[in-house]
Amino acid sequence: YELQVADGYQVGRVNGLAVMGEDSGIMLPVMAEVTPSQGPGEVIATGQLKEMAQEAVDNVSAIIKKFSDENISEKDIHIQFVQAGQGGVDGDSASITVATAVISALEGVGVDQSLAMTGSLSVRGDVLPVGGVTHKIEAAAKTGCTRVIIPAANMQDVMIEDEYREMVEIIPVSHISEVLDIALEGEAEKDSLVDRLKSITGSALAPENQISGPSSPNPQ
Amino acid sequence: YELQVADGYQVGRVNGLAVMGEDSGIMLPVMAEVTPSQGPGEVIATGQLKEMAQEAVDNVSAIIKKFSDENISEKDIHIQFVQAGQGGVDGDSASITVATAVISALEGVGVDQSLAMTGSLSVRGDVLPVGGVTHKIEAAAKTGCTRVIIPAANMQDVMIEDEYREMVEIIPVSHISEVLDIALEGEAEKDSLVDRLKSITGSALAPENQISGPSSPNPQ
Amino acid sequence: YELQVADGYQVGRVNGLAVMGEDSGIMLPVMAEVTPSQGPGEVIATGQLKEMAQEAVDNVSAIIKKFSDENISEKDIHIQFVQAGQGGVDGDSASITVATAVISALEGVGVDQSLAMTGSLSVRGDVLPVGGVTHKIEAAAKTGCTRVIIPAANMQDVMIEDEYREMVEIIPVSHISEVLDIALEGEAEKDSLVDRLKSITGSALAPENQISGPSSPNPQ
Amino acid sequence: YELQVADGYQVGRVNGLAVMGEDSGIMLPVMAEVTPSQGPGEVIATGQLKEMAQEAVDNVSAIIKKFSDENISEKDIHIQFVQAGQGGVDGDSASITVATAVISALEGVGVDQSLAMTGSLSVRGDVLPVGGVTHKIEAAAKTGCTRVIIPAANMQDVMIEDEYREMVEIIPVSHISEVLDIALEGEAEKDSLVDRLKSITGSALAPENQISGPSSPNPQ
Amino acid sequence: YELQVADGYQVGRVNGLAVMGEDSGIMLPVMAEVTPSQGPGEVIATGQLKEMAQEAVDNVSAIIKKFSDENISEKDIHIQFVQAGQGGVDGDSASITVATAVISALEGVGVDQSLAMTGSLSVRGDVLPVGGVTHKIEAAAKTGCTRVIIPAANMQDVMIEDEYREMVEIIPVSHISEVLDIALEGEAEKDSLVDRLKSITGSALAPENQISGPSSPNPQ
Amino acid sequence: YELQVADGYQVGRVNGLAVMGEDSGIMLPVMAEVTPSQGPGEVIATGQLKEMAQEAVDNVSAIIKKFSDENISEKDIHIQFVQAGQGGVDGDSASITVATAVISALEGVGVDQSLAMTGSLSVRGDVLPVGGVTHKIEAAAKTGCTRVIIPAANMQDVMIEDEYREMVEIIPVSHISEVLDIALEGEAEKDSLVDRLKSITGSALAPENQISGPSSPNPQ
Ligand SMILES: [Ca+2]
Ligand SMILES: [Ca+2]
Ligand SMILES: [Ca+2]
Ligand SMILES: [Ca+2]
Ligand SMILES: [Ca+2]
Ligand SMILES: [Ca+2]
Ligand SMILES: [Ca+2]
Ligand SMILES: [Ca+2]
Ligand SMILES: [Ca+2]
Ligand SMILES: [Ca+2]
Ligand SMILES: [Ca+2]
Ligand SMILES: [Ca+2]
Repeated sequence: YELQVADGYQVGRVNGLAVMGEDSGIMLPVMAEVTPSQGPGEVIATGQLKEMAQEAVDNVSAIIKKFSDENISEKDIHIQFVQAGQGGVDGDSASITVATAVISALEGVGVDQSLAMTGSLSVRGDVLPVGGVTHKIEAAAKTGCTRVIIPAANMQDVMIEDEYREMVEIIPVSHISEVLDIALEGEAEKDSLVDRLKSITGSALAPENQISGPSSPNPQ
Repeated sequence: YELQVADGYQVGRVNGLAVMGEDSGIMLPVMAEVTPSQGPGEVIATGQLKEMAQEAVDNVSAIIKKFSDENISEKDIHIQFVQAGQGGVDGDSASITVATAVISALEGVGVDQSLAMTGSLSVRGDVLPVGGVTHKIEAAAKTGCTRVIIPAANMQDVMIEDEYREMVEIIPVSHISEVLDIALEGEAEKDSLVDRLKSITGSALAPENQISGPSSPNPQ
Repeated sequence: YELQVADGYQVGRVNGLAVMGEDSGIMLPVMAEVTPSQGPGEVIATGQLKEMAQEAVDNVSAIIKKFSDENISEKDIHIQFVQAGQGGVDGDSASITVATAVISALEGVGVDQSLAMTGSLSVRGDVLPVGGVTHKIEAAAKTGCTRVIIPAANMQDVMIEDEYREMVEIIPVSHISEVLDIALEGEAEKDSLVDRLKSITGSALAPENQISGPSSPNPQ
Repeated sequence: YELQVADGYQVGRVNGLAVMGEDSGIMLPVMAEVTPSQGPGEVIATGQLKEMAQEAVDNVSAIIKKFSDENISEKDIHIQFVQAGQGGVDGDSASITVATAVISALEGVGVDQSLAMTGSLSVRGDVLPVGGVTHKIEAAAKTGCTRVIIPAANMQDVMIEDEYREMVEIIPVSHISEVLDIALEGEAEKDSLVDRLKSITGSALAPENQISGPSSPNPQ
Repeated sequence: YELQVADGYQVGRVNGLAVMGEDSGIMLPVMAEVTPSQGPGEVIATGQLKEMAQEAVDNVSAIIKKFSDENISEKDIHIQFVQAGQGGVDGDSASITVATAVISALEGVGVDQSLAMTGSLSVRGDVLPVGGVTHKIEAAAKTGCTRVIIPAANMQDVMIEDEYREMVEIIPVSHISEVLDIALEGEAEKDSLVDRLKSITGSALAPENQISGPSSPNPQ
Repeated sequence: YELQVADGYQVGRVNGLAVMGEDSGIMLPVMAEVTPSQGPGEVIATGQLKEMAQEAVDNVSAIIKKFSDENISEKDIHIQFVQAGQGGVDGDSASITVATAVISALEGVGVDQSLAMTGSLSVRGDVLPVGGVTHKIEAAAKTGCTRVIIPAANMQDVMIEDEYREMVEIIPVSHISEVLDIALEGEAEKDSLVDRLKSITGSALAPENQISGPSSPNPQ
């Protein structure tokens, strides 16, 4: 049962991408919800997470807690890896997916379901490179997604076959604010969120401070 | 000792369905109660739950905490898998059962005991598919239940024998609000709960956003 | 050292019954005390409990917290399985014993020491069937108890020898309020407690909603 | 290094008795201190306790929390098994020792150092029987103690050799209030404590409700 | 993917140095962010830390909590070992790196990215020696860093090859206040931070109290 | 790298002594710092402690919490075993070292660095005997310390060689108040601390109540 959604907008739902085994990708949606808490607020992640995924959730929460303009101390943030049952998620590469799902749920702004994404995150919002981008892009294309976000530092690793090259647009990003600008619904409300996120994380997007891979990325 | 109840209404009690071994189903009731808490409120689940069941309880609690119009922070929510002692419950497929039992206990509205149900849940209220629906439906029929709720995405998997086909009505659902509309007692009070649940989870039931399986479901 | 008490009334002490090995029963008293808490109130159970016993304590606490008319959030509830050292208790069948001991301690009303009891509990107060009732009844009789409470759904399993049949009266129950009506001291104060417990758990005792075993019980 | 103290009075220090190996006893002092807490008050026990000892500490704390007329919620209670390093304590038989040390520390009343004691406790203050009383009494005598408290239900087990019989007075008790009456310093202050303890635990000392062993104890 | 940044200033990012295997060094950046907390504030460290690293984080937090002039009790401090995935970090030698990253994030003052550092810390701010300084300095040089901070007590261990000797300036330090003086951006704001840190940790920098290695360090 | 300091005064730093292997001693400094807490105050000990060391820290904290005249509930107490990495500390014998370091940090009074010490502690302040005193004294002498504090009950065990006998003064103590009188800087402020500590722990130093070893100690 693959619960694929590849068009329209939904609040709190983002199409993530993962690698399965050695040489295939899979689309794994992440869903988020924010609720009043029992006791102190918590981040509650489900979907048989491995230890590294728990750390990714901790990194994402650094951004969420700083971003929210509501009092996060009395809210629980639920993060659900919807189909991750088969062996757990390698959550590190789902970090931008998780961050986008939670911010969508927190702000009530829809996420583009024709978009899929993969990317790790620093606690200050930099998008860090991940493994298996080629297999992931192909999995997104097969599912009917028309756009895929990947870390800029992974552009050199993209070697997808020609048949998929026309099906999906590959979008390199280097900061979480770019991810939200591409993924969220609406224009006015979204731009306000993106501006808030940029101001929180400071000059991270200024060219001279940008974090990049050792060799120059090779965009397609 | 099977503690079967197959008619009338009870508060906080729902007939769940589970698979036993390879090829048989069993009816496993779930009971819930909401009480004042000692210290911060907690969700307390009993019945020798496996890890996956604990995660299902976490997913359900995302919905419950958002749904309740009382201050949930000083309440404990007790969830009891009444006969699950024999090897623990595979709680993921009991998610809609748990959600229904807790909302019934929280609101004091009775649940139809001639109804059985199975289905997983997203943290935003979507009913997700489960395994073993055919065996589960037969188990409900044998126990005397006359209606069974299953996920819409599982309709294609229903292959029950003719003798059971006349005994039970199979009802496909794709959102928790549909489950409550079918399961709860009373009309005015129930419709108010269902409306509240729909408004909380947004446009989830609108056709264009509906989550469905890869092939078109085949309702009976 | 068997610390048997088989007559008079004591606050916070109830004669429980357990199965030892394959084919013998034993009387295991449960004692309870309610105290001011350090920090948030807790339920603290001692006597080398197994996991299932811990879950039984959680189920009982659902009833206690709802029942108490004092602010339970600043109280600790201590539950002691007095002689359970030899291999731990199978606490599930001690649920009604624990509930009775705690309510006695909480309300300061004595419990009949000539009475022994066994029975599991749902979080809403239904008395659920247990194993080994015949051996348990014989153990109570040997110890000098004159009355034994068992779940109504277990009446069909009672096969005690004639010599014990005259020594003990067997009393079937299907709700915790019946247990308290039989076990507690005094009449006016007790009836008020029993009424409170019935009103809390709703229509659970009404005939049409009563939970029963698959075949009609066979009272003696 | 045996840190024996066998005369005078000290606050928060009590001579406990334990069995070592198969056939010898040892005197193990217990010390207690009550302090302001960091965060919620806790009971903090040290001295390489085994699981059973932790449970004994929980049972004792039921009595302490009810007994104290200060606000125990902002106090930490430290309990130290001073010489228990060699393999941990079998703490169950140290329950009355622990209770006496903590009440002495809490109230600032000295404990008789020429006295040693052994006995288990119910959460309501009954002194329950323990193992190895003969070896324990001999250990107390060798150390220079002149009085030993044991559970009344253990009087039948006392088989000490003649040489020790003249050295120590054996005092059977069945309730913690008797232990304090014998162990504490001063008369007026102590009697007030003992009365408070009796009133807390109700009619536990009234003859008709007294807990006793199956056969009549045989005092010497 | 090595995410090297070797010039400019960034808030909350510091170039740490670690030893890999027997005889090579690696530059491992540490990033920090300070956010409002859910519930009580916590120090949350990610990057597959070993137990010793957790202790280093505890030591650093002693300095941070004393240093901050904001109310740290409602803040979470996130510390991320960005590339530590390959076998975890030996966090003890990252202590000054972590302290610098957190103070930068807390105060919003940038850190020199052309600088790398290694050093352990006492809870009172003394910089303690670490292993592998030669390999670490060479790794920093290869990455393009022009200055490297090491513990003064390690100066005798520096045996780098001539080719690196011209590429990097080696700066010995003995207190965390010296580290901040060298690493932070701006002059006025920084000097105020350094003065605050010196006053907190008392006379630690006075020559007569200085902690040093057994033999006199041999600066280059 | 041995970070030895053998003269002058420092706040929050004390020269502890430990046994290494069978027949040698080592000087292990303990450092302490007291800071505002995040959430409820905690005692945080670092340096790869074994379980016994954790218990020693608990025992010490009984004294610290009672001693402090500030509100300890909102403070964290950091205790660092600076060089204990090689296999963990046998912390029990570091109890007086830890207590002295923490009280120094709490009160801001310097500790004599020409002094080393070893000794266990009861929760009420008695100094209890430890193992390996001869090897420990020799280690202190080799490091340049001129005075060593040991438990009075260990004086009989001192068998140091003549060459060390002239290098160090051996000072037996039986209560933590004596340790502080010897270790702390200043006279007026220190005497006030020592008096406070004596009054807290009552008549512990009165000769008739003094705890001593079985045979008369043999001071040198
Ligand atoms: Ca919670
Ligand atoms: Ca835009
Ligand atoms: Ca609780
Ligand atoms: Ca309707
Ligand atoms: Ca507590
Ligand atoms: Ca009645
Ligand atoms: Ca505490
Ligand atoms: Ca008296
Ligand atoms: Ca938190
Ligand atoms: Ca400067
Ligand atoms: Ca804390
Ligand atoms: Ca003096």
